[in-house]
Amino acid sequence: MSRPLDVLTDALNQTVILKVRGKREIRGTLRSYDPHLNLYLENAEMIHAGNEEAGEEERTESLGNIILRGDNVILISPPS
Amino acid sequence: MSRPLDVLTDALNQTVILKVRGKREIRGTLRSYDPHLNLYLENAEMIHAGNEEAGEEERTESLGNIILRGDNVILISPPS
Amino acid sequence: MSRPLDVLTDALNQTVILKVRGKREIRGTLRSYDPHLNLYLENAEMIHAGNEEAGEEERTESLGNIILRGDNVILISPPS
Amino acid sequence: MSRPLDVLTDALNQTVILKVRGKREIRGTLRSYDPHLNLYLENAEMIHAGNEEAGEEERTESLGNIILRGDNVILISPPS
Amino acid sequence: MSRPLDVLTDALNQTVILKVRGKREIRGTLRSYDPHLNLYLENAEMIHAGNEEAGEEERTESLGNIILRGDNVILISPPS
Amino acid sequence: MSRPLDVLTDALNQTVILKVRGKREIRGTLRSYDPHLNLYLENAEMIHAGNEEAGEEERTESLGNIILRGDNVILISPPS
Amino acid sequence: MSRPLDVLTDALNQTVILKVRGKREIRGTLRSYDPHLNLYLENAEMIHAGNEEAGEEERTESLGNIILRGDNVILISPPS
Repeated sequence: MSRPLDVLTDALNQTVILKVRGKREIRGTLRSYDPHLNLYLENAEMIHAGNEEAGEEERTESLGNIILRGDNVILISPPS
Repeated sequence: MSRPLDVLTDALNQTVILKVRGKREIRGTLRSYDPHLNLYLENAEMIHAGNEEAGEEERTESLGNIILRGDNVILISPPS
Repeated sequence: MSRPLDVLTDALNQTVILKVRGKREIRGTLRSYDPHLNLYLENAEMIHAGNEEAGEEERTESLGNIILRGDNVILISPPS
Repeated sequence: MSRPLDVLTDALNQTVILKVRGKREIRGTLRSYDPHLNLYLENAEMIHAGNEEAGEEERTESLGNIILRGDNVILISPPS
Repeated sequence: MSRPLDVLTDALNQTVILKVRGKREIRGTLRSYDPHLNLYLENAEMIHAGNEEAGEEERTESLGNIILRGDNVILISPPS
Repeated sequence: MSRPLDVLTDALNQTVILKVRGKREIRGTLRSYDPHLNLYLENAEMIHAGNEEAGEEERTESLGNIILRGDNVILISPPS
Repeated sequence: MSRPLDVLTDALNQTVILKVRGKREIRGTLRSYDPHLNLYLENAEMIHAGNEEAGEEERTESLGNIILRGDNVILISPPS
């Protein structure tokens, strides 16, 4: 059995989608990761879910290149 | 006595149901895990419980393949 | 003096009641545990306390067999 | 100087009162403890503070014997 | 440079005031401590700040002797 | 593959933008970092997002030079 | 590259300003620190931000000398 994080090797240089704490999503190109799930992403953007009840729309914020601290990660979705 | 996580070996390549923090459930095919309960799931979907009082229905979100960070896991239910 | 977790050895294969984070209770047959209090329970069910003020009743959810991640445990009550 | 947890040795087999997370108190007979403050208590009961503004009274819940996970403990009061 | 916790040696057997999580204060005589800031206090009392807007007054609760788990401590004020 | 934190070496002495817990942003010149993501920033300022619904505007607070404790960091955006 | 915490050596015996969890600030003279950012401060005072909407003013509370547990620290601002 390979380890869960081994899958990230195949996802290098590809677009990944993350769910992070605080009901936010981040998309970007995965350039590196470490065992704590610290990630380096290029051309990243954060998607803030709009509050539907308040009639708010989803909002995308451009982040550029980012180092994301691993303990904020809920899940990582590499390309299928 | 075997260890609790040993049960996951029998659950490999089968559908598991997870409860994760934030009152969410995730279902998917378990491909690998590690001692922190980091998991790699294929064909995963997240079930958002609807707010009954507000008349909301349960909503299913397709996630594709995901690496789930172990510290978000509350419980894992392998097939019986 | 024995250690607190030693008590769980006597509780193996018996029904235990757990209080877990989020004001929930879980009951099931204890099959194994480890020093982090990760637990493997068979025939588990979760009891959601109803909100008394809202006139809600307690609700029982069948979970089947589960691995519970130890850091969600508040207390474990083995049979007396 | 002795260490804070050394005091618990003198409290073995006596009734202790605990404050735990979530504004709850637990009373019981201390049978064992470990360095993480995991505790084994016999004949334990949990005291739920009533919401005074709502006119609720304090409510006592019998727990039987319990293993309490140490990270839920705020303080332990041994008999004086 | 001495270490911050070294100051506690001079505070042994004297009254200290603590701020702990949940907007509470504890006062008591410091008898021992360890590197995690677990503390043993004698004749301790907890001061619950009253909600000023609701016209509540500060309330003092006698705790007797207590072992306080270190991760609840925000700050310790030894006598000047 | 380089490690995510290696990117910070190239960002030394340049302006970085941080998202930190509590919906706040910090900008400043990165002078040093360590593996916990403790950071030393010069000429830092904190941007408090205004509550749009309440018609509040974004507010900038000058912080001077700061040591930021790493566990408050969500992400770091070095210059592209 | 020096480490972020090295900056604190130059700040010894000078006034530092801290932001700590719970939207509070602390000012005091830094006497010692350790790698966990446990701090010993003399003549410390806590600044409670007033709730502007409720027309509350900022309030300063004198703390005397304090040991602050490092995990409550968000940032430390030494004198420029």
